[in-house]
Amino acid sequence: MKLSELGETGLLKRIETSLQTVDKGVFIGIGDDAAGVRFANGTDLLITTDLLAEGIHFDLRYTPFYKLGAKALLVNISDIAAMGGIPRYALIAIAVPQCLKVEDIDELYRGIKNTSASYKISIIGGDTSASKSGLMINITLLGEAQRGYVIKRSSAKKGDKIFVTGTLGDSSAGLELLKKGKRNGYLIQRHLLPAPRVKEGIFLSKNRLAAAMIDISDGVATDLNHICEQSSVGATIYEDKIPISKGLKKAKLKKRPLDYALSGGEDYELLFTVRERNIKKICDAISKGRLSAAMIGEITEKKKGIFLIDSRGRQRPLLATGFEHFKS
Amino acid sequence: MKLSELGETGLLKRIETSLQTVDKGVFIGIGDDAAGVRFANGTDLLITTDLLAEGIHFDLRYTPFYKLGAKALLVNISDIAAMGGIPRYALIAIAVPQCLKVEDIDELYRGIKNTSASYKISIIGGDTSASKSGLMINITLLGEAQRGYVIKRSSAKKGDKIFVTGTLGDSSAGLELLKKGKRNGYLIQRHLLPAPRVKEGIFLSKNRLAAAMIDISDGVATDLNHICEQSSVGATIYEDKIPISKGLKKAKLKKRPLDYALSGGEDYELLFTVRERNIKKICDAISKGRLSAAMIGEITEKKKGIFLIDSRGRQRPLLATGFEHFKS
Repeated sequence: MKLSELGETGLLKRIETSLQTVDKGVFIGIGDDAAGVRFANGTDLLITTDLLAEGIHFDLRYTPFYKLGAKALLVNISDIAAMGGIPRYALIAIAVPQCLKVEDIDELYRGIKNTSASYKISIIGGDTSASKSGLMINITLLGEAQRGYVIKRSSAKKGDKIFVTGTLGDSSAGLELLKKGKRNGYLIQRHLLPAPRVKEGIFLSKNRLAAAMIDISDGVATDLNHICEQSSVGATIYEDKIPISKGLKKAKLKKRPLDYALSGGEDYELLFTVRERNIKKICDAISKGRLSAAMIGEITEKKKGIFLIDSRGRQRPLLATGFEHFKS
Repeated sequence: MKLSELGETGLLKRIETSLQTVDKGVFIGIGDDAAGVRFANGTDLLITTDLLAEGIHFDLRYTPFYKLGAKALLVNISDIAAMGGIPRYALIAIAVPQCLKVEDIDELYRGIKNTSASYKISIIGGDTSASKSGLMINITLLGEAQRGYVIKRSSAKKGDKIFVTGTLGDSSAGLELLKKGKRNGYLIQRHLLPAPRVKEGIFLSKNRLAAAMIDISDGVATDLNHICEQSSVGATIYEDKIPISKGLKKAKLKKRPLDYALSGGEDYELLFTVRERNIKKICDAISKGRLSAAMIGEITEKKKGIFLIDSRGRQRPLLATGFEHFKS
């Protein structure tokens, strides 16, 4: 069925019916002028918003609608994870080209709904609109954090060790394979369905183990630069400590695995710094399998700058190389 | 300057610098993975999101960027007003075609910023993206309400009187004039810069005077239908009680003033229902100039349906005629 047959009211009803929520914190759900939620005393509210635009953030030629919906929510979940928060409530705004099929939109929302269910997130509102051109999805996610336990980007200090969760570079390598026409495999899955580190974020927050934290959405080089800029510090990381998956190591790609790991985007792993006194606790958690993370370097003084040391001990500046949407 | 010269990072910095906030409830502002805000105990959180798409919700041929930014925020403010809430924190997501000038985006944000200042709203986050096609603006607004004082759409009861604030139909008449090539005047101003009824909403909430409430964004016919559907009631309204401005009455337009008032969208006035026992208080407030509102009808049983009675006493069904974006 075409959207033009269903109409906006029809689409809204279809979406609303599929998204009913039962969370007891929600006292006004979908269907009023605004949603109403109540947080427990002693918790703070976290809020993030991410806009995904067709042709910029995704390509419908190789992105299934289900995974697109899921990913649109997952990238927001990663932002809440990066604060050590618990994702709770989402609002979904979409602008849809009239030519899309209703079944495609159903798939998109099915991806959103199943993902929200996995993370116990309630969908409490949103907006739908036609689009004269491409598909746009803007999700706003509310999270909660115990008062005083939020982990910011700006609290890194000289002497902190730098850790990252998981492995880096898989997602951007997967994107390259998708563009080449491949459709399956580990790297592609990592690109289409990232796995935000909510449990790890909460573990680090609850135990006050991370000093500063960010999620790696633009590549570790760029995101480490954000931490350093906002904390007024420098950093040194070591090439041979960067965690790279077996899948990335053996994939046949244009660039070296390390290049994807440093500059590739959309890993949605966490980068965090740890004070000297907490290193043992982190290493214990890693060795006991409670945390999947690796130490990749340390925080230095601001004036020392941000450097990468290669396997032969040579150092070079680690530049923020994040993707620039407006530059061609 | 073109956006392509400034780049996304440059645009982000430019926006962030212009939007610094000092609200004490904001413990993490723009620049981290998520914003962090703290609400006072005893207050509930309201949240709404509105997506405006070029070619659907606005036309850059006759919408100045400053007013577009202002209006994008104002329509969200109206949603919070319709719950009886106080608008507090906004997140601004935009997708920008590469061909736009930096100065245009500056104007857009100046409109947002001045409007947020007028309503004491802090901008706490957002997202920027390129757009392959048109300009999109998605604003998410958080508001607060004293616990138990929120006014929903679903609480109208048989016997309630129906009121609206201000005058209706001005905005859609203004849009028609804009499309004809006119650029100034009262009706056009009402379309480009609506004035959401925050004070009125708070007054009604604080004094528990409104039973059910909605903002009139799709025309009183459609929005009264929403109230009736969600409250499971019927309604009768009277043609000659619909408040129509002098400007609309004397304007030379295609349709009768009443048609704009009933079916025109984007008035952003409030429609609310009042229990019998509170009518005197409302009338007192109106006569003392504390509230600008008029009674237009009453709530009936659901089975009676929703009707309009004309000046000769004839009745006809009042159909929801709101704008359908997907139908042509």
